[in-house]
Amino acid sequence: MIEDKQPQRTPISELGEFGLIDHLTKNIEIKNTSTKYGVGDDCAILEYGDKQTLVSTDLLVENVHFDLSYVPLKHLGYKAVMVNLSDVYSMMGKATQITVSIAMSNRFPVEAVEELYEGINLACKLYDVDLVGGDVTSSNLGLVISITVIGEVEKDKAVKRNGAKDGDLLVVSGDLGGAYLGLQVLEREKEVYKVNPDSQPDLSGYDYVMERQLKPEARMDIPKILNELDVLPTSMIDISDGLSSEVLHICTQSEVGCNIYEEKIPLDPTVISACEEFNLDATTVALSGGEDYELLFTINAADYDKIKGNPSLTVIGHITDASAGTNLVTRAGESITIKAQGWNHMS
Amino acid sequence: MIEDKQPQRTPISELGEFGLIDHLTKNIEIKNTSTKYGVGDDCAILEYGDKQTLVSTDLLVENVHFDLSYVPLKHLGYKAVMVNLSDVYSMMGKATQITVSIAMSNRFPVEAVEELYEGINLACKLYDVDLVGGDVTSSNLGLVISITVIGEVEKDKAVKRNGAKDGDLLVVSGDLGGAYLGLQVLEREKEVYKVNPDSQPDLSGYDYVMERQLKPEARMDIPKILNELDVLPTSMIDISDGLSSEVLHICTQSEVGCNIYEEKIPLDPTVISACEEFNLDATTVALSGGEDYELLFTINAADYDKIKGNPSLTVIGHITDASAGTNLVTRAGESITIKAQGWNHMS
Repeated sequence: MIEDKQPQRTPISELGEFGLIDHLTKNIEIKNTSTKYGVGDDCAILEYGDKQTLVSTDLLVENVHFDLSYVPLKHLGYKAVMVNLSDVYSMMGKATQITVSIAMSNRFPVEAVEELYEGINLACKLYDVDLVGGDVTSSNLGLVISITVIGEVEKDKAVKRNGAKDGDLLVVSGDLGGAYLGLQVLEREKEVYKVNPDSQPDLSGYDYVMERQLKPEARMDIPKILNELDVLPTSMIDISDGLSSEVLHICTQSEVGCNIYEEKIPLDPTVISACEEFNLDATTVALSGGEDYELLFTINAADYDKIKGNPSLTVIGHITDASAGTNLVTRAGESITIKAQGWNHMS
Repeated sequence: MIEDKQPQRTPISELGEFGLIDHLTKNIEIKNTSTKYGVGDDCAILEYGDKQTLVSTDLLVENVHFDLSYVPLKHLGYKAVMVNLSDVYSMMGKATQITVSIAMSNRFPVEAVEELYEGINLACKLYDVDLVGGDVTSSNLGLVISITVIGEVEKDKAVKRNGAKDGDLLVVSGDLGGAYLGLQVLEREKEVYKVNPDSQPDLSGYDYVMERQLKPEARMDIPKILNELDVLPTSMIDISDGLSSEVLHICTQSEVGCNIYEEKIPLDPTVISACEEFNLDATTVALSGGEDYELLFTINAADYDKIKGNPSLTVIGHITDASAGTNLVTRAGESITIKAQGWNHMS
């Protein structure tokens, strides 16, 4: 939020596409032995021994997925990588490579693209991922970021969404709702700024929810923890669209039902207090907020002893027969049918 | 160019993101044994035995890479896949999977997306490629298509750009310049249409160049032919930005020079006659036109006998020491330094 008033602005046309790609990728260090050849040819070359390869892709569009009026480009780059890595971790894999394609209008100078790549490169460094290719192109359409992630997993150890069984426990990592509240804070400050551009944003006390929104961390640690605990989930998904949307994916694909207990949903104290301030129901925010990038998974009930007491993991309910439906059991003991209320970018 | 006057128009919001993805991917058949699991989870699962994996990605942006006023969506989908497959063939690989991400504004109805996917699915079918994942999102920014392709190649048989040696022969597949001329014809008809919307486009005699522009075919056959002829190129690249830009990539990365002979550059007779009509120099068009998606490669001179007489392959010059520079030898015997004049979307 603090800006250099006289930043350097090099027009992208000064470097051209190839110059810009060279410039952005010159310091890349290869970290994964599966990366045989990275940026610089028509394709990257990867090699996996006896492992299986995971691939996922996500597209982020300006003013749909992010608002540059309050998202610093470095954070945006970092988050764009997290969104993708999260998909690999949610199958119990290890993310190993990404490709990054960017379309941006000429209103962005080279320095802006550098900032974006700073975040991308930092994410790669911290998560041991190699940037192996991509594309940079102009756009009269604002900024678009498309990332594809590649990962590896032991043969037949990838955990899909369709393996949940009646009696399994529903487990979630971390806590929920923070990212959505961070967005509310940012939106509020944007409105204040529109009315009074001289105002300084008041973000004190919102550090946690702001960080959840602007700089989320994908849960690379959870597959490791589960491996160490010798727990192989029966199904798994990452929470990008909100708990309700994700649990419905698991239930639909596994052909099962579920009971989630409202009182078990993990919430950070700052999320609860921010909900009070914004007059929002914390459970609704956790169910529908999205963008938390935590992991939701099911385990055999016999594995409960292995995970109990782990501070990163919370059992929030259990899987039932499909005929029992998908239910939220409220604090008052009432059963409410869970409906998808995830972000629907199409509507 | 012939439109159904009362096409069906289903708003995308009627299906929603997940509904739309299900709808678009429900008929996908898996063709590659390396595809263990396709669309429907956080990641696709791939498995490669002793082979190496190739990955490449390309981003196509409306009004930068394509103009929907004359490109039918089905053709666009087909071409978007070709652009990516070409990168795998240009490393002597076999393309096996793609992911497709699309951002589009609400002005597109479901039927438009279906048309786009018809082209994508047709390309996958004809090129034995599995569509294994993707993302569909809205955009207030027009249409953006991001495709990532994955392929395989025998261990250490991937041909990069950096292996050309002094004395190697420069070879090109097919013929050049057609795609650029197809674009000129389409642009001309667009101008005519603007002045007189009742005019019928006059495209007779332009079938070949129109097809080169609107429905290019990636050269899947060339790696096969070279394998059968027992020729492993020393370097290889696909011609997306024009011959001059691509040969400079090879020369720069291989640290060599080259002589290309103007009289050897393969041109289709319809390209030559269209050049005359448009008052364009055919050699310039071949050097700088781009979008032909032919392959340019270098072979050891000892392999010449193996490829000579093959109707798909033309020797256009040879590699020299770097100190000799990168030259076009004209019909008059003059040497002109080759400069990159490829499409620069950044300028």
